Amino acid sequence: MTALHADPATLPALAAGLVDDLRARRPRVHCLMNTVVQKFVADGLTALGAVPSMTSAAEEVAAFVHKADALVVNLGTLDAGRRQAIGVALDAAAREGRRWSLDPAHCDYSPSRAGFARALLAREPAVLRVNRDEHELLAAPARIVTVTTGSVDRITWNGTALRAENGHPLMAQVTGTGCLSGALIAAFLAIEGNAFTAAAAAAAVLGVAGEIAARSATGPGSFQPALLDALANLSPADLIAHARISNEQD
Amino acid sequence: MTALHADPATLPALAAGLVDDLRARRPRVHCLMNTVVQKFVADGLTALGAVPSMTSAAEEVAAFVHKADALVVNLGTLDAGRRQAIGVALDAAAREGRRWSLDPAHCDYSPSRAGFARALLAREPAVLRVNRDEHELLAAPARIVTVTTGSVDRITWNGTALRAENGHPLMAQVTGTGCLSGALIAAFLAIEGNAFTAAAAAAAVLGVAGEIAARSATGPGSFQPALLDALANLSPADLIAHARISNEQD
Amino acid sequence: MTALHADPATLPALAAGLVDDLRARRPRVHCLMNTVVQKFVADGLTALGAVPSMTSAAEEVAAFVHKADALVVNLGTLDAGRRQAIGVALDAAAREGRRWSLDPAHCDYSPSRAGFARALLAREPAVLRVNRDEHELLAAPARIVTVTTGSVDRITWNGTALRAENGHPLMAQVTGTGCLSGALIAAFLAIEGNAFTAAAAAAAVLGVAGEIAARSATGPGSFQPALLDALANLSPADLIAHARISNEQD
Repeated sequence: MTALHADPATLPALAAGLVDDLRARRPRVHCLMNTVVQKFVADGLTALGAVPSMTSAAEEVAAFVHKADALVVNLGTLDAGRRQAIGVALDAAAREGRRWSLDPAHCDYSPSRAGFARALLAREPAVLRVNRDEHELLAAPARIVTVTTGSVDRITWNGTALRAENGHPLMAQVTGTGCLSGALIAAFLAIEGNAFTAAAAAAAVLGVAGEIAARSATGPGSFQPALLDALANLSPADLIAHARISNEQD
Repeated sequence: MTALHADPATLPALAAGLVDDLRARRPRVHCLMNTVVQKFVADGLTALGAVPSMTSAAEEVAAFVHKADALVVNLGTLDAGRRQAIGVALDAAAREGRRWSLDPAHCDYSPSRAGFARALLAREPAVLRVNRDEHELLAAPARIVTVTTGSVDRITWNGTALRAENGHPLMAQVTGTGCLSGALIAAFLAIEGNAFTAAAAAAAVLGVAGEIAARSATGPGSFQPALLDALANLSPADLIAHARISNEQD
Repeated sequence: MTALHADPATLPALAAGLVDDLRARRPRVHCLMNTVVQKFVADGLTALGAVPSMTSAAEEVAAFVHKADALVVNLGTLDAGRRQAIGVALDAAAREGRRWSLDPAHCDYSPSRAGFARALLAREPAVLRVNRDEHELLAAPARIVTVTTGSVDRITWNGTALRAENGHPLMAQVTGTGCLSGALIAAFLAIEGNAFTAAAAAAAVLGVAGEIAARSATGPGSFQPALLDALANLSPADLIAHARISNEQD
């Protein structure tokens, strides 16, 4: 991967261009996704303009990866069948040159899940998405872009660190916004070669959409349809006006 | 099955009568449904007036089929356990004389799923529901009613073809509207002996509800609760006023 | 368990205090939850202030129970893997002293599920939640608090019976409100030693939130986000003003 040459100040415009590109190209994103949030993640991907698929069956997943442009591997509701399917999917992804994001959801709850997450890191995801608790347990090597989400998202790669400051507290009250973040990263990986830029674009898009959704929401229930609407209606101008991405040292 | 004797012009009134009937009889529909959209499909069936059940466990499904009035078999998120459960469910359906609709979701992505779908077609579903890509791969014999959904739905049986022209583009931005279509067909199969009429009624109901929902929606997020509301509040008069069903050759 | 010493007239204020307590302590509730309603239940728990987790994998569930403050065991979409995971989870719960609620969803549809439910009753859940049909099949011993939900909820323990009269007919048109009820009971079990009080508080909270949600809903679709908003925004004053709990003999 080449370094990020652009100034962080240019990232909102870069992200806006990528959203246009994504809507034009409609990349397919195969999701190894926990059973809890499959529909929410599928709807979020579709709202932005990507085309999701979701099977986690070992006997079928290679055919779905073959059709896909990128993958997200989420470790929620992990069981033996899902572990096997993830292995088959990553073998297919390696063969077909598909990039993927890793979301080791709740790996801080389960030592066996944390061990599996470490083994997957060795298979070189393009981006690792974690929350702060997961990050303490699972540090990626510097060559893997890492997005640590929280009230401020932190995006690191090879000594560079960005802060993405969009978002809204209601996002933490909706199960699956973190999982959707991992899936949107995969959608941008499908159309942008620079994983650092792809991760920053995903963070900005979800954060700005969350802020727009919060304007009309009266709680975490009404926030969810509003978030999907905001992803569908997000304009390049919204991103350029509202995305807040900066170098960490600034 | 007897032929459709009615003129297509009478189908909106027929569908309106079937909706009244469905709400009075509250048929039970057992759903072998992919894990992604189980709740959305259950909510859609309930909104219209049917009573859904959802287990896909081989050891339990026969008992659920016994309680059910019709079945929908959807091949999304297909794995070995689900294949086995579908076999058990269809054995029970044959024993108990329950009719069923087949939705071979995404069978165009996976040769093994397409093969399984072909084997299921030989077990004589009353209705096959497919999108255009799936239809190219999987043609049913003329004696099986086929609904090919798209911006216009096409309903064929034994040389007769109807066009059902209701619906809204937002429906394609919501994961599961196609799956819900297959489930609504099963609900109408439970109360209407003519599968061609049942399929046309389901297409008209979902399409008109989608148009009503789109009036108040601001995107694919707000469209979903609006669609469930529209299914619950759909009146016979709405159907008679808005359903557009015609002979293909007209 | 000690008896309920409070007069039922004081229960609304008790429930209001428990809601404050729950929001302050944010108990973790592990859910062995059917695949249909996992996200809805997770969102409902989070909206009120609890922290849900959802894995049903036998190899991981003990680690999740270790992190949890209480459990809900729901028997929807029961299969062999889920039965095994429930056994492992209850072994862990016994070791760690975690209390749990049992929701034998649809056990009236399946003899094997009913048999499993009876075996679980012998493992002493703190609360059994059933609807009327399930209750006819599965009577708990008097020492287990039983909540029988319906247009009026009935809460019984050791010869005492309360009526909780809140709620709205739209709740029955949404798949998962019963399952959410079982999960909210577990959330209150995590912070209140008296299981009878915990069950009454959960019934009052969900019923009052349902009434508030129904004011702005136009059908079962719009009711769902409104219900989550109502759970998040529910004030102690709402509960004190609206909760209707009485002795059955009154």
